[in-house]
Parts: sequence; structure tokens; C-alpha cells
Amino acid sequence: MKYQHNFNPTLSDEDIFNEIIKEKEYIGYYNLMHEDTTSFKDYAKTVKQSNIVVIGIGGSTLGTYAIYKFLKHSKNLSKKLYFLETTDPIDIKSKVEAIDLNDTLFIVVSKSGTTIETISIFKYINSLVKCDKNNTLVITENDSKLNKYAKVNEIKTFDIPKNVGGRFSVFSAVGLLPLAIVGIDIDELLSGAKEVYDSFFTKGEDYHRVLKKARFFVEYKNSFNMNVVFSYSSRLEGFNKWYIQLWGESLGKVDINSSRQGLTPIGIIGPIDQHSFLQLIVEGKRDKTITVIKVDDFDSNLKIPHVELEGLSELDYLDNIEFSSLINKQADATIESINNLNDIPCDVITIDGVSERSIANLMYEYELLTSVCAKFMYINAYDQPGVEAGKIILKEKLKGIK
Amino acid sequence: MKYQHNFNPTLSDEDIFNEIIKEKEYIGYYNLMHEDTTSFKDYAKTVKQSNIVVIGIGGSTLGTYAIYKFLKHSKNLSKKLYFLETTDPIDIKSKVEAIDLNDTLFIVVSKSGTTIETISIFKYINSLVKCDKNNTLVITENDSKLNKYAKVNEIKTFDIPKNVGGRFSVFSAVGLLPLAIVGIDIDELLSGAKEVYDSFFTKGEDYHRVLKKARFFVEYKNSFNMNVVFSYSSRLEGFNKWYIQLWGESLGKVDINSSRQGLTPIGIIGPIDQHSFLQLIVEGKRDKTITVIKVDDFDSNLKIPHVELEGLSELDYLDNIEFSSLINKQADATIESINNLNDIPCDVITIDGVSERSIANLMYEYELLTSVCAKFMYINAYDQPGVEAGKIILKEKLKGIK
Repeated sequence: MKYQHNFNPTLSDEDIFNEIIKEKEYIGYYNLMHEDTTSFKDYAKTVKQSNIVVIGIGGSTLGTYAIYKFLKHSKNLSKKLYFLETTDPIDIKSKVEAIDLNDTLFIVVSKSGTTIETISIFKYINSLVKCDKNNTLVITENDSKLNKYAKVNEIKTFDIPKNVGGRFSVFSAVGLLPLAIVGIDIDELLSGAKEVYDSFFTKGEDYHRVLKKARFFVEYKNSFNMNVVFSYSSRLEGFNKWYIQLWGESLGKVDINSSRQGLTPIGIIGPIDQHSFLQLIVEGKRDKTITVIKVDDFDSNLKIPHVELEGLSELDYLDNIEFSSLINKQADATIESINNLNDIPCDVITIDGVSERSIANLMYEYELLTSVCAKFMYINAYDQPGVEAGKIILKEKLKGIK
Repeated sequence: MKYQHNFNPTLSDEDIFNEIIKEKEYIGYYNLMHEDTTSFKDYAKTVKQSNIVVIGIGGSTLGTYAIYKFLKHSKNLSKKLYFLETTDPIDIKSKVEAIDLNDTLFIVVSKSGTTIETISIFKYINSLVKCDKNNTLVITENDSKLNKYAKVNEIKTFDIPKNVGGRFSVFSAVGLLPLAIVGIDIDELLSGAKEVYDSFFTKGEDYHRVLKKARFFVEYKNSFNMNVVFSYSSRLEGFNKWYIQLWGESLGKVDINSSRQGLTPIGIIGPIDQHSFLQLIVEGKRDKTITVIKVDDFDSNLKIPHVELEGLSELDYLDNIEFSSLINKQADATIESINNLNDIPCDVITIDGVSERSIANLMYEYELLTSVCAKFMYINAYDQPGVEAGKIILKEKLKGIK
């Protein structure tokens, strides 16, 4: 008697790992840290302008913004980076007015090359300043219509590989090029991603952590349909937004049984949201997991000074405490109060510092976690079919008003 | 035979309304639009400094920020408003370095008067610049320790009424004073709140809308445990944050049956989050209600110009469309694609314009909606007992490290 089957009564970690290994052959983001960055760095050296404006939306900007926002005040950056994303007229106008457009490099980023927001804004910019090979750069797929436009106009282009989705593209030209131009060490970024890659694919610490966490999230998805990332640094606000896209758009899918899947990402910032969202976590329904993200070393000795405020002496215990210590104790107190309740799933990620390596560690681990969750859920993490209907309706509406 | 009872097999709209009328006698926020604003406006006229820095967190800043962010680019404001909220050392340092502290009025806002973040930052500011009656203003409860400090130092104070909670305080001195100082018309704000007040309490349109919506949210809370506010203007980003605090902290509570309640607020921005969260709404689990907020009139004629981009002519249908029209069509396309699915609860609020009156309409209606939901849930919307445990742990930790 012989027997063959493809049942998986319980997906083992090994099953999932083998699926990821297979996927790694054709999904590009896994291997981006093996890229040669020479062409990015060489181009960056040639940029003379003081202002860099990325025109893009969603996956074309969120990862770049996350890293820039995290590092910009801690690095001595040579240039300023701005993002034009939205079609809100007040937003466009106020941002454009604040930038010297004659001292600006415009980087137009669109995977498809025909993103409505991006092309609309680029057209508007074209009416304010001549956009040509001297002040414009294009990052897109190598056969997109935007690429064609660039070629005709001799504008330099960099490719987004076909098999790298927008929300997984931060370690491709999409993120690396603007970041290199403003002075961020992109090799350190890739080293940070590679640390996690190595640990995961050699079944080290990251492998065990990611598998365990993904399994928990998916097995308990009906109890805990929301995943809260509680980041204890305002510098991680961009990371939170990037995470929301990555998680929401990758996991909000219909599975192979036509059953709706999806874990809802929520990003909050400590200690600010202790005064906003924490009450709901603590006393509300048990429908959320909590991941607290801490920064071990802020590389800051900013201190609460000893200042006597008559009437407020009961708070003198704050004197001489460093703010970095205060914010981390605030995180610890939140964690301890949540853990004391014993019924809220909570984990803590502590990144080393405010460095390229640390933020890349975090972001690459979240990419892996997303891919692994998708495998457990039998869904495709890399498409976004749900937004197509709206795009068609929009096009009809826009053509109708002309 | 006689009969008395306090059963409410089904709470009628009338029952809820009567509860609100009773509550209005002792919960202060309902009536803030009847205040006399003369003292705020008179004080505002005396302010000479160009920069206004609000030191506060949570309810002490979110409402003010929401209104300022909404209006700042559309009004010709005379001064700049900044917020120091977080204990993140990099955030504090970068903000403080960007402001001329010698040309700054510091407004310290804390209801309790002993908020750790607020006093820590105020102490730090004291070490950089002398804070006294010439450059400092205090907004707090009339018997707080911060009030005592102010009195000793002859610093001007304004009161936060005892019966107005932080997250419901935007139309008190907390919001009105900083906003009046930078040049926002606070009487128009109160008129906007009063329009909704009048309509609600005379059982007009707002009464019916708020009651119907709250009833739906609470009756279906187990199916739809998240409420997404999808705001189609980047100017509403502050409103989204304010809503998250209002909703989360008011409704995340244990009810009279010791049952955990709570509807989770999520704030997203269109069209940016069409490229981030929309996929999850459309294909993910049916666990969310969606409220789309539109701005009818952006008071902007910013247009997509007719610019020929060779290779991209398929997008020429965008030419000559105003950005305000584009963003509203994007909202309409999203709404239509959601409604076509027929299984996602979705409503649309269109505010008139980028004006004091419009944002106040919206905020006061959300305050009422929050109060009414809390009544349906048999919870107290106005306390936040869940965050106390963390505060005690933090204090112990901080005293321990000294």
C-alpha cells in the first residue's frame, strides 16, 4: 500500500519555513540586502540640490519616510527630504510654498508608473518649474509608461524589480536612493536587514520568534483581531504608518476557502497614547494583542534639571532623571501594568538605538512576520485586488466631469 | 394594582435623551458654548510673542492641535503654535532648537496640575529660559498644585472647570485660549458647536443622526468592534487623533455588569490610506464600520495643469481637474466601492469647508455621539480608571532609580 497526501492538519513550523524558502525564489524583497548599492551611492554623490522631494504615495513613500523620520534628528544629514503624497490641495500648496523649487531634486516614484496621485502632482510641479534631466529622477518598473516618459526626456531612472511589491520595497531603489542622497548610510541599512535574514534563514533566534508570534496571531485571530504596535518614541511614528500598510494590505485578503482574513494593524506612540488609547487596552474588550517597541539607547543625555517649582515639590523625584530613562520607564510601567492583568497578549521588542542598523532590523523582521502570517492564513501577501474596483469607479467619475 | 419598575428591556431614544438631559446638569462640556469668551480674547490681545508653545499631553493638546492643524494654512494667522507633549528626548530637543525661546509664550496645560510629562518638560524649559509672568501662562484646575505654583509666581492662570474632562475640554480655556492667541476666531468655533447643540437638544437632525448611529454602533458592537474614521483631507489628521482619544478613552470601560466594553477607534486619511488600509476594509473580515469625512469646499482652485508628458498621455483625462474635485471624487469612488459590497456599514459626513464653524460642528457632534454611546453601554464616559495602575508603577520605578 502506498499513500500520498497534501493535507496539513496542523502546519508545522517546518512546513511554513519550507513554503517561505520556496517563495524566496520568486518574491524579490527577501533578497534585497544582497544588492550592489554602488550605483545608488554614485548617483547620490552627483546630487547638488539641497532639497529632495519624493513624489509618490503608499509603498512608494512610507518606508522611506519611516527611516528618515527615525534618523533625521540624530544624523548630521546634508539635505532635507520632503514627500508629496496627497491630492489635498491645501497640503500640496503649503508644502510646495515652503520649498525652494529651484534648489530641489524631484524623485518621482511609482511602481506601475501611472499612479493618479503621483502623476497629478508631478504635472502640477511641471507647471511651477521645468522638470528635466537636471532636477528629476524616476524610480519605476523598467517597462512602465513613466519609464518611457523618462527615457524620452533623458531623465535618469532606477528600476523597481517586478517581483518586489510596493509595500515591501523599502530596501530597493525606492527607499535606498532618496535615503542615500540625504546622507543616510544605506549599507548599514542593508546590514541590519541581513542580520535578521541570517538569523531567520539559519533558524536562529529570529526564526523562532517570528514563527511563534505568527502562529499565535493567526491561531487566535478570532479572539484578537487587532494588533497594536505601541512604539515608545515619536521617531517611530513613520514606522507605525509603514507597519499599518504592510500589515493591513498584505493580510486583509480572502483565503483559499473564500473566507475573509485580516488582522487589523493599529499604531500608537508612547507616552502620548498612554493619555489616549491605553485606557481602552486596559479596560476594554480583550480583542487586541500589544507589541511594545522600545529604543534601548537614545544617544541623548537630555535631563530633567533640578528646578524648584514652588507648590510642585512633590514632583521633585523627577529631577536629574534623563528623558531617555523616563520614556523607557514609562514603557516598562505600561508593560508591567498590562502583564499584571494576565489576559492581554503582549510582547516587547527593544531595538538597540537610533541607527540605520536598528530600524532595518525592525523593518525586515516585520516583513518576514507578515509573510509568515500570510502562509499560516493561506493567502497571498503580495497582491491588493480589493482596491481595484475603487480605481475603476474613480476613473469613470473623472472622465465624466471633463 | 400599581406597578413601578426600572427595567429597560429596550432603551428607547427618549430614554437615552432623558439620561443625557440629566447628565447635562453636571457634566460641563455640554454647555461650554454658552461661555463668555471676553477674558480669552482680551488676554490674547496682550500677547506680544510670535511663538506659542503649549506644554501638555493628551486632552490638554489634542483638541487644540486638531483645530490648529485644520485651519492653519487657510487662515492668515499671526503667530505660530507648537506643542511639547512627549518625553522622547530627540523630539524635545529638535523642537526646542527650532523655536526662538526668547520670543515665546509658554502655556502650561494640565488638568490635574501634576502630569509627569508636562512638569518634566516645563522644568526643562525653565533651565533654558526664565519662565515667569512675562512669558508663561497656566491653564489648570483652580485648586491644583500647578495653580499654586502660578499664584506664587504671579503667573496668569485660566481655569479648567472641574466638571470638564480633558478629552472633552477643547471648547474651554484649554483650546480656546491658545487658538485665540494665534488668531483663530473662537466665537465662530463656539457658534459651530452651538449649531449642533441646538439641533440635538431641540430634537432636530443631529438628534436623530446621533441616536441612530450610536444605537447601531452599540447594538452591533460584537460584530463590528472597530470604527474607522476615513478623513479625506490631510488637514483632518489632528481631528483623527483627537477622535481616537475621545472614543477610546471614553468607551473602553467595564460596564455595570462587569462586562468589558469598548469600540476601537481607527483614524485614516484619504487618499493616502487608499494605498494602505483600504484593501483590508474591502477584503478583510467584516469587523469595522466606516465613517467617511469629506470637506465640501476646500476654498482652493489649485488645478492639475495641462502638461504633456510623453508616454503618459493616457492620464491626460486628469488635466484641468481641480485637486479639490479630485480628492472628493476619490472619496466618492471609495464610498461607492464600499457600498457596492453591501455588507460594510458606512456613513458619510460632509463638512462645509475649512472654517472654524465646520470643524466645531464635527467635533461637538463627536462629543455628543460619544456620550450617547456610553449611555447605551451603561458606562461612565468621563473617567479613565484603567491608566492609574501604570502611573503608580511608574512612580515607584522613578523613585527607585534616584
